[in-house]
Amino acid sequence: MTAISSVTIRRARRDDIAAIVAMLADDALGSARERIEQPLPPSYFQAFERVERDSNIQLVVAEDGEGTVVGCLQLCILPGISSQGASRGLLEDVRVAGDRRSRGIGEQLVQWAVREARANGCKLVELLTHQSRVDAQRFYQRLGFARSHVGMTIRF
Amino acid sequence: MTAISSVTIRRARRDDIAAIVAMLADDALGSARERIEQPLPPSYFQAFERVERDSNIQLVVAEDGEGTVVGCLQLCILPGISSQGASRGLLEDVRVAGDRRSRGIGEQLVQWAVREARANGCKLVELLTHQSRVDAQRFYQRLGFARSHVGMTIRF
Repeated sequence: MTAISSVTIRRARRDDIAAIVAMLADDALGSARERIEQPLPPSYFQAFERVERDSNIQLVVAEDGEGTVVGCLQLCILPGISSQGASRGLLEDVRVAGDRRSRGIGEQLVQWAVREARANGCKLVELLTHQSRVDAQRFYQRLGFARSHVGMTIRF
Repeated sequence: MTAISSVTIRRARRDDIAAIVAMLADDALGSARERIEQPLPPSYFQAFERVERDSNIQLVVAEDGEGTVVGCLQLCILPGISSQGASRGLLEDVRVAGDRRSRGIGEQLVQWAVREARANGCKLVELLTHQSRVDAQRFYQRLGFARSHVGMTIRF
């Protein structure tokens, strides 16, 4: 059994973007969607600025003991009328670096986000995971998530 | 065949909240989650204020020719790093009044939201719909959405 890597979870900074994009691209679905040339396309930095300005969104990274970024996650806390006006949490872009998987890093990220959502009054945390990501679905089930919904998407 | 009802889609106001809550409650899943006594619990009004303050969220209603609220939808436009920094749209709380269904009102609401998301640079619009809502899934497929993802949730 591989040892658990204890990580520090902190807000992402502008100089983490390259590491985040590399993790998003290191994936069967993500590789077709991202561009990892240097310098990175400016659209990534513009998006980071939009994320930074939005007080309901936290983009965080997991950092190992050497200060290397080994995971990321975006948590949106969304107000809404339903469920008696309870906010809900939405998890997006949960990734762990390819050479650091199966060491509990994703679990630490998701559990951080669930705690943060609860602390902000959410009664629900939700996410969409592609039908083909069977391992991810098992991972989330182990953390208490149910396969309760169908996630539907339209791309332009 | 029932005639199409043409509706006006506009931002929700504070005095629409009772109609919105009534639509959320008029549903197999929603009835257990909402409280429709008068006066409404203050949590609904507090949530409306949080929604109003969030520039990335639009809570809209569909109004018929007599000014009656017959549908609602919440669109969140969420910045994020993935897909080269494209924002994505999230649809929540899509409802049509029980006595006005099958007249194209939901379709007008969803098509409005998809247009609005595209106009704001989104490359993707996503939503979660409960596994049991088979009619809703067919409805979204008819509008071009794919059952591409599993929607996972954890409730507190």
